[in-house]
Amino acid sequence: MANNPIVKNGWYMGAWSDEVGRTLLQRWIVSRPVCFYRLQDGSVTAIEDRCPHRRYPLSLGRLDGDVIECNYHGYRIDAGGVCVGVAEQPDTPKASVHRFPLVERDGVVWIWTGDAEAADPALIPDTPWLSDPGWTHVKGLVPLKARQVLLAENLLDLTHETFLHPGSIGNAAVAGTPIDVTSEGDRVSFVRHMVGIEAPPFYEKSMGLTSPIDRWQDGDFHAPGVFILNIRLAPTGTEEPEGFHMKVMYGLTPATETETHDFFALGRDYRIDDAELSTFQLEQQLAVMQEDVDALEIQEVMVATEPPGVRESSIRSDVAGIRGRRLLEKLAAKEAAAAGEAPAPRRPRAAASSVSGAGA
Amino acid sequence: MANNPIVKNGWYMGAWSDEVGRTLLQRWIVSRPVCFYRLQDGSVTAIEDRCPHRRYPLSLGRLDGDVIECNYHGYRIDAGGVCVGVAEQPDTPKASVHRFPLVERDGVVWIWTGDAEAADPALIPDTPWLSDPGWTHVKGLVPLKARQVLLAENLLDLTHETFLHPGSIGNAAVAGTPIDVTSEGDRVSFVRHMVGIEAPPFYEKSMGLTSPIDRWQDGDFHAPGVFILNIRLAPTGTEEPEGFHMKVMYGLTPATETETHDFFALGRDYRIDDAELSTFQLEQQLAVMQEDVDALEIQEVMVATEPPGVRESSIRSDVAGIRGRRLLEKLAAKEAAAAGEAPAPRRPRAAASSVSGAGA
Amino acid sequence: MANNPIVKNGWYMGAWSDEVGRTLLQRWIVSRPVCFYRLQDGSVTAIEDRCPHRRYPLSLGRLDGDVIECNYHGYRIDAGGVCVGVAEQPDTPKASVHRFPLVERDGVVWIWTGDAEAADPALIPDTPWLSDPGWTHVKGLVPLKARQVLLAENLLDLTHETFLHPGSIGNAAVAGTPIDVTSEGDRVSFVRHMVGIEAPPFYEKSMGLTSPIDRWQDGDFHAPGVFILNIRLAPTGTEEPEGFHMKVMYGLTPATETETHDFFALGRDYRIDDAELSTFQLEQQLAVMQEDVDALEIQEVMVATEPPGVRESSIRSDVAGIRGRRLLEKLAAKEAAAAGEAPAPRRPRAAASSVSGAGA
Repeated sequence: MANNPIVKNGWYMGAWSDEVGRTLLQRWIVSRPVCFYRLQDGSVTAIEDRCPHRRYPLSLGRLDGDVIECNYHGYRIDAGGVCVGVAEQPDTPKASVHRFPLVERDGVVWIWTGDAEAADPALIPDTPWLSDPGWTHVKGLVPLKARQVLLAENLLDLTHETFLHPGSIGNAAVAGTPIDVTSEGDRVSFVRHMVGIEAPPFYEKSMGLTSPIDRWQDGDFHAPGVFILNIRLAPTGTEEPEGFHMKVMYGLTPATETETHDFFALGRDYRIDDAELSTFQLEQQLAVMQEDVDALEIQEVMVATEPPGVRESSIRSDVAGIRGRRLLEKLAAKEAAAAGEAPAPRRPRAAASSVSGAGA
Repeated sequence: MANNPIVKNGWYMGAWSDEVGRTLLQRWIVSRPVCFYRLQDGSVTAIEDRCPHRRYPLSLGRLDGDVIECNYHGYRIDAGGVCVGVAEQPDTPKASVHRFPLVERDGVVWIWTGDAEAADPALIPDTPWLSDPGWTHVKGLVPLKARQVLLAENLLDLTHETFLHPGSIGNAAVAGTPIDVTSEGDRVSFVRHMVGIEAPPFYEKSMGLTSPIDRWQDGDFHAPGVFILNIRLAPTGTEEPEGFHMKVMYGLTPATETETHDFFALGRDYRIDDAELSTFQLEQQLAVMQEDVDALEIQEVMVATEPPGVRESSIRSDVAGIRGRRLLEKLAAKEAAAAGEAPAPRRPRAAASSVSGAGA
Repeated sequence: MANNPIVKNGWYMGAWSDEVGRTLLQRWIVSRPVCFYRLQDGSVTAIEDRCPHRRYPLSLGRLDGDVIECNYHGYRIDAGGVCVGVAEQPDTPKASVHRFPLVERDGVVWIWTGDAEAADPALIPDTPWLSDPGWTHVKGLVPLKARQVLLAENLLDLTHETFLHPGSIGNAAVAGTPIDVTSEGDRVSFVRHMVGIEAPPFYEKSMGLTSPIDRWQDGDFHAPGVFILNIRLAPTGTEEPEGFHMKVMYGLTPATETETHDFFALGRDYRIDDAELSTFQLEQQLAVMQEDVDALEIQEVMVATEPPGVRESSIRSDVAGIRGRRLLEKLAAKEAAAAGEAPAPRRPRAAASSVSGAGA
């Protein structure tokens, strides 16, 4: 089995704000069941979705004000996860379930799945364009039956657009243009500036651009779970910052060891009132993601069934992906060490020299 | 993984008598395949359902008198599990499969899955009402994808009727009325006498009772696999033994580690010739059991996916359930010790003091 | 879990020649994904179907001449499994995947799954009748969800025809006629000559034979993966070599530990231009194999769920099957020893004396 770092100390996208209301929502995150709901004051809570009594999902219970009454035996759990009584019973047992630190910002419910003391909201990546009136976006959530790290590497190496998405966003210029990679702390970034290239079909339709164009893909992976791609398209030679701007955010939230919630938002700063364009972009984005999902789910099978010890080949365009993976491995190993566990072994790979010169 | 005691030395319901005839019946019990059939003299046998030759199910064979001829290579196995020849072959190999001790009584085929020497028919709970002409009953078998102990605890803590079955047999009075718990040997019993309460819908329709009523639920768990609930309903204040009497028997037979056969019979001593009432009661019972099955199968997932070491909260109404579980754990540990295995660890739980004062 | 020897050093049927063309074909063999395709010069290659880069199946790639371009990131792998570049990239990383030794002969693509140095084409069983103009055959591939050794034993003990295939090729004479068994090197052979017997339905229709007939079944198991049955049918008393001759070849190719590719070819030397007869024989063969598949998949469940240590009973007609199994066990143990692994334990069985006198 290949390496599979799952980091717990991090802010993950837990839900889109409009998914969470007065109906209890169960969602598995880092292999834990989480019950999300909105309180009467409009704020959001998320608690472990196993009743402290007999493990029945609280999300199948009944909301009485801000208290959940478990539908199996009547335990009453408040928004903080604390048992405040049992229906029809004189006892109020001392019991509670974990309440996850949450931050709701720009329409996103961020959840912290690690040690609560370390949950610093300043660590959440900025996403002002999700609430900026000068921007609009389409968004959603796609289920993925593959480990999270494979999705992270997919996003950090966009050369795959050339091969997997040739009918929409990819063409030879993507794989053919080298990237510059930088990293700092828990962030890995790359910059790919394509100049005087042919416009891929998606952008041709989406913006009315005709070739040649300039296309910028500047990506930031905020470990462990957020990737934001900054896109600029313009007739070739257009001075910065002119042109069409887009942002694609992905929330890479591990559901289990081998399943991932693939949240996405696709934003733009042009024709923001054009509902037809929004529909086109949403459909196109979902079609592209389905190509990725199909590929990643097959890759998961190939990775999971491979015997250990087989070397992996890498090239310069892998630098960002490898850095992202190593960052996840480092963070997971640190957590395992803190918890007194042995770290999982890394996948063997080609000598560092074959990639070390690239882009850094 | 939470505790999951599976006891082998015990009489389990193997089948209803009318399920067993001249057609070979395969049923898995305590993770073993069992082949049931009725002999020419009308008696019943049950043997391990793996041919001693190459493990093909004998239940797929052909019955020749009382001998099964295996349909793969012709081994002939008699009702005692002994090979008495091989079709078309001169050899009669010395070979046999396990024959399970059986008792057929009151329309139930009881099977003993442990050491044959310990199979004492006196240990089978009495069920005279299943054959008493002054009673009638409806019965069946519901498959359950959950470990047996969860079903035992479900039945020993009927406060769940208030929450899971409010439309039929549950109302606030059930959870709101404390129980008295006694235990002796391999039996755990509770008594819940509700006085002057509102009649739940099922009993209103079933007996024409109008509120207020008295309702008695006296339950006996005969470890490892039988639960009998004695019910008395009457206009409030009616002297014992007057009123409507019902018995609900459950056979909790482990199929595998995480699957259980949920046999049931619902008996009554009133309007015993009323076929329409029988149909109503059977439909109602199946609807109630489906609510339990849905809940228990979800609970199984939540229990199976929980990391070890999480404490469990309990209250006074759990006393019977906890005693039942501990009894199963004790019996399973005893068997494991006799077999030279290490006992499985118990699930951590709250300090005993939180439940010790209750009902005993 | 019972014994399950999977031998790697051997020639297995990988594909029928007409399955392999310019469309990439993925097939799992001994738990490895293999990509088969035909080169521009008409020859066939088979390489490990995991890209050396990120494990994506090469079989989902695009064929450019004889080079596969991986559809995830553009690695270009030649027919020998060697990376010869990456599309749109300046790098040609030193990387390769395993190329399996192959031999194409008589319409069969044979694959060697063990150490390449040991791949001696002389070890491939002769199958001249597959390309002899005096013969014709029908053929195919049936998927089987059972471990390979169970299929080997099925074929080496044809007494099962009497019980499992009574409507087509089996009758009492098969089980009732003893076999002579010989073995040499990696071959186990048996001879069953039935004289003056009733013709089974399949042969009656297929050849217009009327009882009594002579029927010969001479079987050769070429470990680890080929079984060839030589059949002669004739009016009783007909001198050898007169009569109707048939050959049934099975390729027993392990797909995974518990799944097997069941290749088959059914050849004859009479009425070779009779297309209607070919259709009848193909339909009949598939019907018989489906009876075997149904039985073997049930047997797999019974074997896989049996606790270890239960003795197995055998009789004289098992001699060939047991020798075949022991041969597979011996070969697998030898490979495990060479690889430094502990050999898997053998299934316990009855004392050798019960089978030792037979047929050897």
